[in-house]
Amino acid sequence: MAAMLAVHTVEVRAETVAIVGGTIIDGNGGALVRDGVIVIENERISAIGGRSTPIPRDARRIAAAGKYIMPGLMDANVHLVLDFVPYTLIRYEGRYDELAIEAAQIALRNGVTTVFDSWGPRQYLVKARDAINEGRVPGSRVYLAGNIVGLGGPFSEDFWGQLVDRKNIPAFENVADRLDALWEENVGPNLVMMTPEQVRKEIRDYTARGINFLKYAATTHNGRAAQYIQFSPRAQQAIVEEAHRAGITVQTHTSSVEGLRLAVEAGVDLLQHCETTGPQPIPPELLALIVERRVPCAIFPNTTKAEAWYTARAEAATFFERYKIIDTNQRALLRTGAVILLATDGGVFSENTLQWSWLRNRYPPEENLVTLGEGHFHWLRAVEQKGMKPMDALLAATRNIARAYKVDRDLGTLEKGKLADLLILDRNPLETAANYPSISLIMKAGRIIDRDALPTQSLLTAPR
Amino acid sequence: MAAMLAVHTVEVRAETVAIVGGTIIDGNGGALVRDGVIVIENERISAIGGRSTPIPRDARRIAAAGKYIMPGLMDANVHLVLDFVPYTLIRYEGRYDELAIEAAQIALRNGVTTVFDSWGPRQYLVKARDAINEGRVPGSRVYLAGNIVGLGGPFSEDFWGQLVDRKNIPAFENVADRLDALWEENVGPNLVMMTPEQVRKEIRDYTARGINFLKYAATTHNGRAAQYIQFSPRAQQAIVEEAHRAGITVQTHTSSVEGLRLAVEAGVDLLQHCETTGPQPIPPELLALIVERRVPCAIFPNTTKAEAWYTARAEAATFFERYKIIDTNQRALLRTGAVILLATDGGVFSENTLQWSWLRNRYPPEENLVTLGEGHFHWLRAVEQKGMKPMDALLAATRNIARAYKVDRDLGTLEKGKLADLLILDRNPLETAANYPSISLIMKAGRIIDRDALPTQSLLTAPR
Amino acid sequence: MAAMLAVHTVEVRAETVAIVGGTIIDGNGGALVRDGVIVIENERISAIGGRSTPIPRDARRIAAAGKYIMPGLMDANVHLVLDFVPYTLIRYEGRYDELAIEAAQIALRNGVTTVFDSWGPRQYLVKARDAINEGRVPGSRVYLAGNIVGLGGPFSEDFWGQLVDRKNIPAFENVADRLDALWEENVGPNLVMMTPEQVRKEIRDYTARGINFLKYAATTHNGRAAQYIQFSPRAQQAIVEEAHRAGITVQTHTSSVEGLRLAVEAGVDLLQHCETTGPQPIPPELLALIVERRVPCAIFPNTTKAEAWYTARAEAATFFERYKIIDTNQRALLRTGAVILLATDGGVFSENTLQWSWLRNRYPPEENLVTLGEGHFHWLRAVEQKGMKPMDALLAATRNIARAYKVDRDLGTLEKGKLADLLILDRNPLETAANYPSISLIMKAGRIIDRDALPTQSLLTAPR
Amino acid sequence: MAAMLAVHTVEVRAETVAIVGGTIIDGNGGALVRDGVIVIENERISAIGGRSTPIPRDARRIAAAGKYIMPGLMDANVHLVLDFVPYTLIRYEGRYDELAIEAAQIALRNGVTTVFDSWGPRQYLVKARDAINEGRVPGSRVYLAGNIVGLGGPFSEDFWGQLVDRKNIPAFENVADRLDALWEENVGPNLVMMTPEQVRKEIRDYTARGINFLKYAATTHNGRAAQYIQFSPRAQQAIVEEAHRAGITVQTHTSSVEGLRLAVEAGVDLLQHCETTGPQPIPPELLALIVERRVPCAIFPNTTKAEAWYTARAEAATFFERYKIIDTNQRALLRTGAVILLATDGGVFSENTLQWSWLRNRYPPEENLVTLGEGHFHWLRAVEQKGMKPMDALLAATRNIARAYKVDRDLGTLEKGKLADLLILDRNPLETAANYPSISLIMKAGRIIDRDALPTQSLLTAPR
Repeated sequence: MAAMLAVHTVEVRAETVAIVGGTIIDGNGGALVRDGVIVIENERISAIGGRSTPIPRDARRIAAAGKYIMPGLMDANVHLVLDFVPYTLIRYEGRYDELAIEAAQIALRNGVTTVFDSWGPRQYLVKARDAINEGRVPGSRVYLAGNIVGLGGPFSEDFWGQLVDRKNIPAFENVADRLDALWEENVGPNLVMMTPEQVRKEIRDYTARGINFLKYAATTHNGRAAQYIQFSPRAQQAIVEEAHRAGITVQTHTSSVEGLRLAVEAGVDLLQHCETTGPQPIPPELLALIVERRVPCAIFPNTTKAEAWYTARAEAATFFERYKIIDTNQRALLRTGAVILLATDGGVFSENTLQWSWLRNRYPPEENLVTLGEGHFHWLRAVEQKGMKPMDALLAATRNIARAYKVDRDLGTLEKGKLADLLILDRNPLETAANYPSISLIMKAGRIIDRDALPTQSLLTAPR
Repeated sequence: MAAMLAVHTVEVRAETVAIVGGTIIDGNGGALVRDGVIVIENERISAIGGRSTPIPRDARRIAAAGKYIMPGLMDANVHLVLDFVPYTLIRYEGRYDELAIEAAQIALRNGVTTVFDSWGPRQYLVKARDAINEGRVPGSRVYLAGNIVGLGGPFSEDFWGQLVDRKNIPAFENVADRLDALWEENVGPNLVMMTPEQVRKEIRDYTARGINFLKYAATTHNGRAAQYIQFSPRAQQAIVEEAHRAGITVQTHTSSVEGLRLAVEAGVDLLQHCETTGPQPIPPELLALIVERRVPCAIFPNTTKAEAWYTARAEAATFFERYKIIDTNQRALLRTGAVILLATDGGVFSENTLQWSWLRNRYPPEENLVTLGEGHFHWLRAVEQKGMKPMDALLAATRNIARAYKVDRDLGTLEKGKLADLLILDRNPLETAANYPSISLIMKAGRIIDRDALPTQSLLTAPR
Repeated sequence: MAAMLAVHTVEVRAETVAIVGGTIIDGNGGALVRDGVIVIENERISAIGGRSTPIPRDARRIAAAGKYIMPGLMDANVHLVLDFVPYTLIRYEGRYDELAIEAAQIALRNGVTTVFDSWGPRQYLVKARDAINEGRVPGSRVYLAGNIVGLGGPFSEDFWGQLVDRKNIPAFENVADRLDALWEENVGPNLVMMTPEQVRKEIRDYTARGINFLKYAATTHNGRAAQYIQFSPRAQQAIVEEAHRAGITVQTHTSSVEGLRLAVEAGVDLLQHCETTGPQPIPPELLALIVERRVPCAIFPNTTKAEAWYTARAEAATFFERYKIIDTNQRALLRTGAVILLATDGGVFSENTLQWSWLRNRYPPEENLVTLGEGHFHWLRAVEQKGMKPMDALLAATRNIARAYKVDRDLGTLEKGKLADLLILDRNPLETAANYPSISLIMKAGRIIDRDALPTQSLLTAPR
Repeated sequence: MAAMLAVHTVEVRAETVAIVGGTIIDGNGGALVRDGVIVIENERISAIGGRSTPIPRDARRIAAAGKYIMPGLMDANVHLVLDFVPYTLIRYEGRYDELAIEAAQIALRNGVTTVFDSWGPRQYLVKARDAINEGRVPGSRVYLAGNIVGLGGPFSEDFWGQLVDRKNIPAFENVADRLDALWEENVGPNLVMMTPEQVRKEIRDYTARGINFLKYAATTHNGRAAQYIQFSPRAQQAIVEEAHRAGITVQTHTSSVEGLRLAVEAGVDLLQHCETTGPQPIPPELLALIVERRVPCAIFPNTTKAEAWYTARAEAATFFERYKIIDTNQRALLRTGAVILLATDGGVFSENTLQWSWLRNRYPPEENLVTLGEGHFHWLRAVEQKGMKPMDALLAATRNIARAYKVDRDLGTLEKGKLADLLILDRNPLETAANYPSISLIMKAGRIIDRDALPTQSLLTAPR
């Protein structure tokens, strides 16, 4: 693959670029700058302002009159290797970095310049991240967590193991063990039975393996009605301390009210899907605590259309019933002014996996948040439908995420000195979220992205 | 059944009895009284002491020279309805009180004058308890908890649901729901997803349903390697408070180190199988805390022979590996002077269930602690083998349990004013635990038990 | 139970009865006799004819003017113990004869005076049959086959074993073995692997156990797409010869074209559901052979409404697709003049079983042929809808069955000397099949049936 | 792969070779020729005889003094693609021809110069066969049948579908369908439900697809106790006729006494594992018929050591019990002089598959007949242990197979004009079967095989 991809990564001497004449939405929430100028030199914004902003003589000019310039979109929760069914994992064993790159390119092609991968096979994600972030292959900028601390791999009880015992698949035990280990490494389900000090030691070890942030499962991950607490408050404390000691942020998977509360109390930096609390909505005092502490909440809102699909199935199963509470929680979070982040859980599935009846019975066929490359647009429409203000939604998709992940020194807004990750849209995204897809140009770190060239290799997305 | 059993419970005018000439082990841990006298009037001990103790003229004398008199044995953890497989539950639907009585009679017949049922179908156990404790049928004195708060019924994921999906058994869904509800009532798995205040409300309701003590699952109950925390510290606090407010003791099921720690911190009155901590032994500081707070620990030690059976299978599966840590923990608890209680998890199984291959693969065929009627003898031998002092073992089987359950005003020792629950043994149990089965007479509340008449009805124990 | 039922079987001295004034449909296919007279003495018809038929002086007269008298209906295929799910079989273990009697009473109450049970637990069916046929309890007259030779019991691969491995149901292996043995006896699946001579020996043994006819599985019985041949032509020959040697008729279960052909060639006396040939319709030459040899065909036609229910599911699964071919075959059999018999596969299900989702997904909720007590009426409507002539349908439900089972010396028509099994209907069944339920009186062997008293005991049909 | 393998297939101008001085066992069962001469020209034997046989001047001489020359071994039943578990099939999808070539090379390397593949994915086997038989890659000469007519592919009920429902494996339904179709093509389980004429049509179609012989399932293929008949006598007749009309031989899979009988009566040319008759041994008259008609029987005898392994498990399960009858049948076939063929069912498994617990529980770890490359040596030892005469065993492994498959014009013996497929052994194989592995040289069609170069590509046999 290296050879094949190399063609896209030829080192071109960086030129100076000026985007001229467009309306700038700088991602700080303030007034828009009409007829603005943005100058980019050496990957970064060297100047930004009104029409009077000086433009270097040798700058290549990009005319943006009538268009809108905004920071590149970010997704606070993706899974670049999400098609983790036996067929795909076997077919591409040893090549998961290629799957991750394909996914990151699909994200980038659709305006997402930075993604945060919150569960996946660490070593392959590191390989993909380094290839992208070091400029060897194009793709959305990647930050990664590796495993969710305390959870098992794809075939464990935490994932497909709920559906099928690996022992019942012919000659699959060893394979499943090997594949699960790629996810679990030293922070799998074993940690649940350890003392806080033992947990601390394993976390210290794991944070040294090139991850950008840490995620742990405060509660269980499965389809059952009862969601249990995975780590005692002491163990959670140890996890948070070790992440911070390693200089990285820490976040949680939670799936119950009490799990959410314990995570907040443990001092995490980010709450994934904090609206997922099972049959009980978030109690008012916990909601108030989240708002007061300004703990960033990555939420996963569905559009009206997708919610209707779930609602139609709500009588049938607990799984679908949950979506009512999820909506209640999302509206409460929006209403009370919690710090909201765009997140999709997005990934790329092969056609085979998409045809799988089990999946089809659980995922809406349209406006599906989890479809990487589309999900972020659905997210923006969904919060609009739920009453979020346009500028708040835009910040949730840009600056809020950069801040939550503590990468706002470089990312999240259009400001002098920051990396030039930006989108030029044909239509105003603050007018209606339906305008976000009107992308006319994508720039990442000062480079214009050749969208038609992405993905550079089609594995899961190849037509059959 | 009532009619049939009545014949055994004819109200006889209580006579005065004197046990004369035996060696008295009064269950207070002090020196033995040789050639002693115990006078029993109206169910209770009216006098106890040396040969000079006055004996009422009309007293019927029981000669005990050369024999040993000790308090009736107690079992801190039994399940009078334990054969909860589909066949038995269907066959005897509506008659579980009869199964419970059969079990209580088998316990009594073997010297256990009081049992504490820590998981079962509450309403039937109440019916059985009342029949026995009000003297309508013979049987071991019964105290009961009903459900383990937070766990599901027999066919839930917490029990057989792990092995087989009820939906896969023809026409069994409705039946399983109905049967599970007999265990769960309002304190099943739903509580796990509730807020502490909601949990409190359900506990308050449940404590009003005639239970004698409360048991909750601090951690999950299943055969998996990872055992999760079922209730947050706040929720545990609510449970403990509500039990105490209702004037009853509260105990826990735990299956991990952190679960055990949380239970101790929540202030429970008794820890069931506190040696069950999975792959990690109890850490020293937690052990010290248990000893310092004097939290009673019901332990489930296996004899050397039974342990050998488990050890032989230890390579094969996590389940068997655990027994090594269990032994380590038991020895540590004994060594450090924790308050120990005899407990067996004992119950009665039908021949059909005993033939079941799954059960046979997990239960030792000999010296099986769980076999009600035998298990307590195995327990006493097992702790002897693990180095417990004979008198400590005897107290663990009598006074300690009475105190832990706060019924020591009436039970647990041979003292003036207490209920006359006692055993006369042919041989000294303090010489060797092998002497416990040498029972020559069982008295419960002043009545001599006709052991050969028990059980009065053989349902599960009927020969096929 | 015997005591309880005895009240319905008090031996009353038989009186002479005359049914006067009705239109007689004697079941021979000829012209109706208006204003007819039927005289019954000692269980049998002593005279039948026009208004001039002499009526004994002491005869009790039943006025039938405006009404229609026809032979009692017969059902060539029922299963008096059909609710063979674990719950029911465990709940009523040892009492299956009572279930069979309840079913036979429901049949009788609805005008079916004789049933042929073609699969069930022989010894209990024998007990039920003898109780009914010897007049100790009321009920439809019973003839029985016991097991279907070559098939396993309820939990074998031939029935529920397809859905669930008995080993996966806790403590059920022994129970399933014991229950299966009640069906299988010496003629279960083992026979499939035997030589023809070994098969012959087992059949000889089985025919001596009180069965009235023999049924064997020429092909497999399960829900799979491929239906295999169970017995070689030589083995089938041996089975047929042994049945005939024992003086009883022999019939088959078949589920494929070639299986049907082999059965016809083996010389069987009756073909059950000969329209069930999977994805291939009966080829013309085989159809011609069946017609030419006049082999009676018991068919299971669905009404238009029930067929619509199946059709709506036909895209989903092979099972439902089959109903198209079944209809094609039924119409071909009717068109070519095959000897047709009414058969329903009817039985009684408990409410629990009827609520079972698996069952509900496969059985039409209305006009379900398999509902004993209703199914025969649906049958008669269904063949009418498929174009059968009214008189032919009536013969299919009476005389044809009696002849096929060789009991036409006593049953099947209203003729002098035959047992007085008859129905008096308010409306003419030859006008429209919708008139069959207009039953005004049921007589079996000369006795008027007290329909409201049936069933005398409600086990499965008890309201919950 | 083509490029990589090409190196082994460079067209070298054939030289004349003379093998001089060895003892010739020509495979006709007669006396051995000491100090013999075999001359090979243009792939074939041009002269064979005693020391006086003229040797062309330009012949390269191979000294064979003290050695033994015999025809190349043949295996009447192999499966070149046998590791048909999900992992392997997914991993190598599209490359099964490479797996087949690897297997054929392992066979050749161990002295098997011709194999008959009796079940596999036809199109890939054809590709592998053509590559080998046309001399493009080395390997054992291949003849192939494709699918076993009437059976399904790897994931059907006939194979792994018995163990696991494909619907229970995540996202595997489509994959399983696609893979099964590679085996089934137009002669899968659907044929079972067809009329003989429809079956005939499909066979005619299939025989035109490049197969060398036809195999059909006279009975079912699965692990169950009851084995059913798949095709009626008429359908079997049609199959046999169509194979013969296409000029190829026809053989059967059978698994019961009656299945075997029907196959013999249908006139098949070869019976695979005719000793597999379940719980009943082959009856004497059927045995006599097989002998009288001289129907070749491919048998699968286990060595004493392997049989001991099966016997040790015989109490546990039907599967293992069968081996007693199998031995009985083998001895009867040997005793009565049936035409015996060496057959192993041999194939190549990956290390992963070999570690699979299910497989390990069913296959002896040593002297396993199914291990391609070894199995034929075990076969020869096994029949020796069961009393077969050395020369008969040698013929069973050479001439008998060539005759049964009607390829004896070219193969099976060392005779003038035949293809020079031969082995030079260091020790006399007629002295003890343990001498067969003492291979000093393998010649196939006149070419000396470079054994160390085989397999030329290690896929399944690669060390991990």
